Amino acid sequence: MTVTRQNYNQELEELRNDILEMGTRVELAIGQAVASLTTQDIEMAKHVMAGDDYIDAMESSIEDKCMVLIARQQPLARDLRIIGTGLKITTDLERVGDHAFDIAKIALGIAEQPLIKPLVDIPRMSAMAQKMLRDSLAAYINLDIALAENVCTADDEVDDIYHQTFRELLTYMMEDPRNITQATQLLFVARYLERVADHATNIGEWVIYLETGQRMRKK
Amino acid sequence: MTVTRQNYNQELEELRNDILEMGTRVELAIGQAVASLTTQDIEMAKHVMAGDDYIDAMESSIEDKCMVLIARQQPLARDLRIIGTGLKITTDLERVGDHAFDIAKIALGIAEQPLIKPLVDIPRMSAMAQKMLRDSLAAYINLDIALAENVCTADDEVDDIYHQTFRELLTYMMEDPRNITQATQLLFVARYLERVADHATNIGEWVIYLETGQRMRKK
Repeated sequence: MTVTRQNYNQELEELRNDILEMGTRVELAIGQAVASLTTQDIEMAKHVMAGDDYIDAMESSIEDKCMVLIARQQPLARDLRIIGTGLKITTDLERVGDHAFDIAKIALGIAEQPLIKPLVDIPRMSAMAQKMLRDSLAAYINLDIALAENVCTADDEVDDIYHQTFRELLTYMMEDPRNITQATQLLFVARYLERVADHATNIGEWVIYLETGQRMRKK
Repeated sequence: MTVTRQNYNQELEELRNDILEMGTRVELAIGQAVASLTTQDIEMAKHVMAGDDYIDAMESSIEDKCMVLIARQQPLARDLRIIGTGLKITTDLERVGDHAFDIAKIALGIAEQPLIKPLVDIPRMSAMAQKMLRDSLAAYINLDIALAENVCTADDEVDDIYHQTFRELLTYMMEDPRNITQATQLLFVARYLERVADHATNIGEWVIYLETGQRMRKK
């Protein structure tokens, strides 16, 4: 019985490590996708797009582990929440990976045309969203509620820059119709980054749920 | 033992009913959100937005049931897949609900300005995505692989209309800068509907996974 419990704890530890690894990878993918956009680096954009399959495979593997763990160990209450939360966080991370793919695809599409403006707010949004993602994962690993709450607060700042970026891009479109096609692509990039911040916020909220049993309003 | 098994089957049946109910509700929400956009119906838009909390609550309730079912019954192989698939489908449905909310929010934002054009392709995309959603749920309930495969095929058609709609809206923006703000909102609506079709496709692919154990490339 003690051995089983030890195995179980080890498996939970492994699950947490897997989630951290997946999170680190999708955060990197977002950073690289935005870098490929600002530096118009075709190879990097392709690299990010090619990496999405691996991220999806990590999601499947973590899901399988979670379900086997639940079925084999019949965890109750808090332990069941730990695993259930792992499943939810993985879904959020996979969506972040999808957004990295989407951004890299846009980067690839406009890599050979001059940028209508130097990109400042988009990398700034990305840096903020990436930090939120790192913090939300650290909050999950260390079960740090205060850090999880910080992540949720930071989301408002990202929303502000998103709206500002949106308005600015509209101005570019209105000034010169030739900017329209590229500016709409950049609008989508801004939207995806705003969603990445939402997913980090979801993860923060899952951590709070894990510790308090209280579900918050998800985004 | 037979009683337990009977209870278990009954609980699985209940799970399927819950998922069907949630699916029916999000499909309706998409229909109403798009109707509120085309008819500029403020009340309907607000109604859809208000309904999102209930959809989120359904998701939580189904998730809780799934986890308790896994923990209590220790299902293996195929039974574990049925429940795991239920969890995944619920996540897709919740995302569709979010898109209904997003579309209704846009409808509300532009309800008091004249539409830049009569909306034709957007309701068409919506009707197609809604049908895909209904079919994917029917495929899940009846474990109908052929129907699930149909859903996956239909997705290409939605993608085609999406690209056509996108190009058309760009033209409107280029013709008259006063169209730009609203046209970008409509671009987002088209994108959300294209995503709804992707989620229906995911559900179709989960059904195929359930029956064959083979995972397909998700969107």
